[in-house]
Amino acid sequence: MIKYPYHLFIGDAQDKAAAKVARGIKDWRPDRVVGQISLPGCQTDLGIDELTVEDAVKHGARTLVIGVANRGGFIAESWKPVLIGALEAGMDLASGLHNLLQDEPDIVAAAERCGCQLHDVRVPRAEYPIANGQRRSGKRCLGVGTDVSVGKMYTMLAMHREMASRGIQSTFRATGQTGILIEGNGVPLDAVVADFMAGSIEWLTPANENDHWDMVEGQGSLFHASYSGVTLALIHGAQPDALILCHDASRHRMRGLSGYRLPTLTQLSEVALTMAQMVNPDCRVIGVSINTSELSERDAAKMIEDVGKDTGLPTTDPFRYGPDILVDALIG
Amino acid sequence: MIKYPYHLFIGDAQDKAAAKVARGIKDWRPDRVVGQISLPGCQTDLGIDELTVEDAVKHGARTLVIGVANRGGFIAESWKPVLIGALEAGMDLASGLHNLLQDEPDIVAAAERCGCQLHDVRVPRAEYPIANGQRRSGKRCLGVGTDVSVGKMYTMLAMHREMASRGIQSTFRATGQTGILIEGNGVPLDAVVADFMAGSIEWLTPANENDHWDMVEGQGSLFHASYSGVTLALIHGAQPDALILCHDASRHRMRGLSGYRLPTLTQLSEVALTMAQMVNPDCRVIGVSINTSELSERDAAKMIEDVGKDTGLPTTDPFRYGPDILVDALIG
Repeated sequence: MIKYPYHLFIGDAQDKAAAKVARGIKDWRPDRVVGQISLPGCQTDLGIDELTVEDAVKHGARTLVIGVANRGGFIAESWKPVLIGALEAGMDLASGLHNLLQDEPDIVAAAERCGCQLHDVRVPRAEYPIANGQRRSGKRCLGVGTDVSVGKMYTMLAMHREMASRGIQSTFRATGQTGILIEGNGVPLDAVVADFMAGSIEWLTPANENDHWDMVEGQGSLFHASYSGVTLALIHGAQPDALILCHDASRHRMRGLSGYRLPTLTQLSEVALTMAQMVNPDCRVIGVSINTSELSERDAAKMIEDVGKDTGLPTTDPFRYGPDILVDALIG
Repeated sequence: MIKYPYHLFIGDAQDKAAAKVARGIKDWRPDRVVGQISLPGCQTDLGIDELTVEDAVKHGARTLVIGVANRGGFIAESWKPVLIGALEAGMDLASGLHNLLQDEPDIVAAAERCGCQLHDVRVPRAEYPIANGQRRSGKRCLGVGTDVSVGKMYTMLAMHREMASRGIQSTFRATGQTGILIEGNGVPLDAVVADFMAGSIEWLTPANENDHWDMVEGQGSLFHASYSGVTLALIHGAQPDALILCHDASRHRMRGLSGYRLPTLTQLSEVALTMAQMVNPDCRVIGVSINTSELSERDAAKMIEDVGKDTGLPTTDPFRYGPDILVDALIG
């Protein structure tokens, strides 16, 4: 287990999305966070104290978490003074990047010298099976998106928290590095070897009591050329009973894919349901989650009303207005 | 590069499908094969000379290729006397199994002792990029299946050979271990890390001359719960201009998935085209390839006629009747 409290490194993040790992931890585990540390040129802010590594240690921080991602997932040379400084101040390091802390000789040497630990949460820790496609007891809900990074994890976390408060049995199932850092376990799906992707999700969401819900963190998008295969493996491994359509109101072009427009929510619904019903004919789309964080209060309310009318589905921004109507729709 | 001629090890294969790697090499590179070697209890035969390793070496064999697969892809202890014997006779070993030659201490020791090489073709050899989804010049044709192992590779190889004989520019692009052993290079897609699947296929099928066709080996099936994610990554990485629907006439249940029926060719066509057109709006389904190897001559002809009528598409068994009409439809 990774020791907390955390200090969140947001580096030279050029926009809000680049620091989404740090933001997720701060939003869902504020009790585990002492502050943030950025580099010159950083274009975002978590709204918490900016602390040096020394000050963070004084506030009790035990692990510096790399909360920033760049395309390709490498550990930038410009980050290293802070990372090595954190080790020298006595903190462990945790990272969800593709390129590993354990593969950086200077970081490994500093960790050994200082007696600190390196946690690469993106490294799969289990030997996953090949999926067998068999139906199993318990229920599973999955978020699917019009694009990557549209709020699928937030939606599942918000619904899970609401379900816990109502006494409904549920478990948040993390499939990405932020989710794993928040939940403490999960499957780093985008780092799993292709043949075992769906099997890793069957392993993560095993048979359960009939009225128990696994709230499964979505990954990628069926419409995103870079990551669609990961998404389909997740759908077929999870055998969802319920899908939540997720969308970011400010997104008009697919992230990282020049020239690609987003699908409509209707297109997403049709394709995702077609794929899900291959493994669970009873699967249904039960609601829409819109990330309206870039919209004014008035525009957000208008958009949610419009989408609800267009799709005929319960629609909300669970982070802004709470996930109640989605939970109502889920437990029907 | 793997040295040839090959000697093909079919071990204790319990049926024809278990020796499909060996059969593929023998069918498509007969000029590179000196013979086969089996173990007691083997239930299949390639129809070529059964030779000891010593005799194979006398006939010029330079590499023993493991041409048999078991579920799980491990190297059976019962195979080792032959494998180590081949090394001691001076041959290299090549394998496409999930479990690696390089992870078997006794095989590694024998290879070192004998100065021979071990080729695990399932190990990715390149650092693949994340897919960027950009359109590129040249044309690409991909086989998609109603199930796994229905003849997608054979279809592409047969079309490629016919195109070469007509002087049409084309390249066979291997995405699995048999294809890689046949072609000498390729991407072992099911062993690629999830995030890089689609990117590995963009890397394999780069921009080319406008009238050049990449004939891309299919993998898995969009309808197969264990491997569907691999298939979708392949479709989105290849950006196919043309799809060939592939089906095995004797298959009624999804291979390895109890309780799953096969989709119809119409269902396959709709889903595969929907996914392909996300990255290439001009993609079309141009024909149907039926593996009729288990049918009588009369039943095969009847089925091909019926499927052609039902789908309205050029339909054949390219291995039985030749791929001419599929090539005609492709270049039409």
